[in-house]
Amino acid sequence: MKCEIIAVGSELLTPFRQDTNSLYLTEKLNEIGVAVAFKTIVGDRRRDLVNAVRTALGRADLVAVMGGLGPTEDDLSREAVAEALGVEIRRDPQLVVALAARFAERRMTMTDNNLKQADIIQGAKVLPNANGTAVGLWLDTEFGGHRKLMMLVPGPPNECKPLFANECIPRLRAILPVRHIAKRVLKATMIPESTADALLAPIYTKYKDVDTTILAGNAEIQLQLFCSKPTLEAARHRVDELAARLEEALDQHLFSSAGETLEQIVLYYLEMKQETLAVAESCTGGLMSERLTSISGSSRSFLGGAVVYSNELKSDFANVPAQLIERHGAVSTEVAEAMARGIRQRVGSSIGVGITGIAGPGGGTEEKPVGLVYIAVSDKHRTQSLECNFRGDRERIRLWASQQALDMVRRRLM
Amino acid sequence: MKCEIIAVGSELLTPFRQDTNSLYLTEKLNEIGVAVAFKTIVGDRRRDLVNAVRTALGRADLVAVMGGLGPTEDDLSREAVAEALGVEIRRDPQLVVALAARFAERRMTMTDNNLKQADIIQGAKVLPNANGTAVGLWLDTEFGGHRKLMMLVPGPPNECKPLFANECIPRLRAILPVRHIAKRVLKATMIPESTADALLAPIYTKYKDVDTTILAGNAEIQLQLFCSKPTLEAARHRVDELAARLEEALDQHLFSSAGETLEQIVLYYLEMKQETLAVAESCTGGLMSERLTSISGSSRSFLGGAVVYSNELKSDFANVPAQLIERHGAVSTEVAEAMARGIRQRVGSSIGVGITGIAGPGGGTEEKPVGLVYIAVSDKHRTQSLECNFRGDRERIRLWASQQALDMVRRRLM
Repeated sequence: MKCEIIAVGSELLTPFRQDTNSLYLTEKLNEIGVAVAFKTIVGDRRRDLVNAVRTALGRADLVAVMGGLGPTEDDLSREAVAEALGVEIRRDPQLVVALAARFAERRMTMTDNNLKQADIIQGAKVLPNANGTAVGLWLDTEFGGHRKLMMLVPGPPNECKPLFANECIPRLRAILPVRHIAKRVLKATMIPESTADALLAPIYTKYKDVDTTILAGNAEIQLQLFCSKPTLEAARHRVDELAARLEEALDQHLFSSAGETLEQIVLYYLEMKQETLAVAESCTGGLMSERLTSISGSSRSFLGGAVVYSNELKSDFANVPAQLIERHGAVSTEVAEAMARGIRQRVGSSIGVGITGIAGPGGGTEEKPVGLVYIAVSDKHRTQSLECNFRGDRERIRLWASQQALDMVRRRLM
Repeated sequence: MKCEIIAVGSELLTPFRQDTNSLYLTEKLNEIGVAVAFKTIVGDRRRDLVNAVRTALGRADLVAVMGGLGPTEDDLSREAVAEALGVEIRRDPQLVVALAARFAERRMTMTDNNLKQADIIQGAKVLPNANGTAVGLWLDTEFGGHRKLMMLVPGPPNECKPLFANECIPRLRAILPVRHIAKRVLKATMIPESTADALLAPIYTKYKDVDTTILAGNAEIQLQLFCSKPTLEAARHRVDELAARLEEALDQHLFSSAGETLEQIVLYYLEMKQETLAVAESCTGGLMSERLTSISGSSRSFLGGAVVYSNELKSDFANVPAQLIERHGAVSTEVAEAMARGIRQRVGSSIGVGITGIAGPGGGTEEKPVGLVYIAVSDKHRTQSLECNFRGDRERIRLWASQQALDMVRRRLM
């Protein structure tokens, strides 16, 4: 079964906005075994809309139209679909009553243009919208001698997504052959994408019935495993088997088997091992602290930190001796290690992290180029550090430095 | 002139990836007066591709095909366009030589499949690709009795964007009537979108020849002004006139007239006024420091800060008396003001900021609910603070708190 998604709205044809609902619809459709073959984005012009709907009906079995169901003159999806199918539109008295009641309940005046939202395409079933005034429509119809399923859903994400999941998917499930799906997300870090692919491709290509996608970005590798089978047990078995083999291959690089973020994993281990953390950051400027504290409940294990840009602050907040900075420079193994030890003592945490480096684009020298970052982790037993040479712009260097530091804490805790 | 953009690639039809190149192409096309009427996303299946190209040729004057020009079996854009137009493909001996030279230069073996990239659609002109092996193609042709312009450009963003800007746009400019454009981006903060729109719509709707887009997000309002005229002077005049009126209406909420970020503006004012800044953050956990230090050169005015999650750290790093916390609670005006004064003294900066609040989702009480944040700014003359009640999830509350704090520093410096 081939599906086409049509996203309607002139704003989606500007340089500023993008359709993102369709990613969610695609995920839900894939879960019931439907592949998306085309996506079309079209503006609020009736002629273009009719053209887009006719084109979709000509090449897909299932057409989802998103947007253009509101009360304004620009909302033309109902009219366009009716014209493409050659059928009438009629106003539904029950929907008029429901609309009026909704406005009355909110003590708002219903302007006449809202009545448009009670218009139904001939043959369509109404899909209730719990989060807005525009209902969805479901059509099981014919076009060019073939059976076609059409869904019209509202554009705002908070209306589109629940309506699609709760109203459209169950109706499709009832029509399509039963499929059960199993999914897994594995995450690894500090391994280049090409290395990961060379390592993993020989494994996952053997599992033809499991759809494996490798995504690289934000200093991480994500592996999305997806398997669809007539029984849930069969799907889970294949995904679990492949996941186990990939996990083994990724070894220490793997940090999550169920989609958690690296921050979540670090906080999870800290709590499990009853350890606490403090961070002294120079070139990352608070990014590592910010990432950790973005997780609710982080205060149980993350005590705090210092953004020690200046040398004076490195001494004042992280106990780094001034003569150590003078001797080795602020960007050095020695200072990173002193920062990790110092912040741990100052804050009274069991683990301390120190990060110092050159994020660029300025400030690099031949001896200490942009991207050079020293990261140290210290606990009561030992202090370890790493010299890193990250490539890319300021944002990337800071991201990779915070990622490497989080990963060093994770490995220390394992 | 109507344009359609076709993005080619099966990965763009998964839940994980999205075409973003088209936003850039749209911006460049808009600048020369071309509107995008349709965007189509299609996978690497030849039949679907031919269908998409034929559909586009039937409804647009200008068709840009992105992707599917590489060396693999899945790269079928050349073949599909040739089939849609009913013309031949021939291998270009000059391109074969150039490809071989490129591989030899890099001491790499050229596998046979690479030769595909020397294939040219009959009647096409070659568009050189400075950043990859796949050249672009330009066709000035006919379809259904109408003149059609077609461009085939590679998919990777670092190849697609420069090739489109440097090779396609000048060719289009030579064909299209001369238009000059003027653009401006105004940014305002701490004003609700609905308030901004009610304030600004009566002004900008009077300028029918200036295309005004209001974008809200990340605690900011952006106004994009765009005007296209036969002369640059005329376009600039209209944009500047409208911008001046909008700036006046936005008053103190306006923080940028040329697209700068709030962080950049704060750092700009700090440097201009020779002031320095330090920040003590509790609920924002380093976010304000992180935002400031994401700007290159921030170390000239931003000295550092402390992430003082625990009460002990509030005292140790920001000189907050323990009895003050005991008396008023860590989330209070008094503690925020003490943090701002204390971090200024500790770090030796001329301005200090203190942020303390409840980011949630846990930790709220009836008296001090989630979203309650106190923000204080202190300099040698005075300490001011603000009680805020932000709505939304943890991420939103932290973002708005950091935004409000940056904005308070900006207003103090103005």
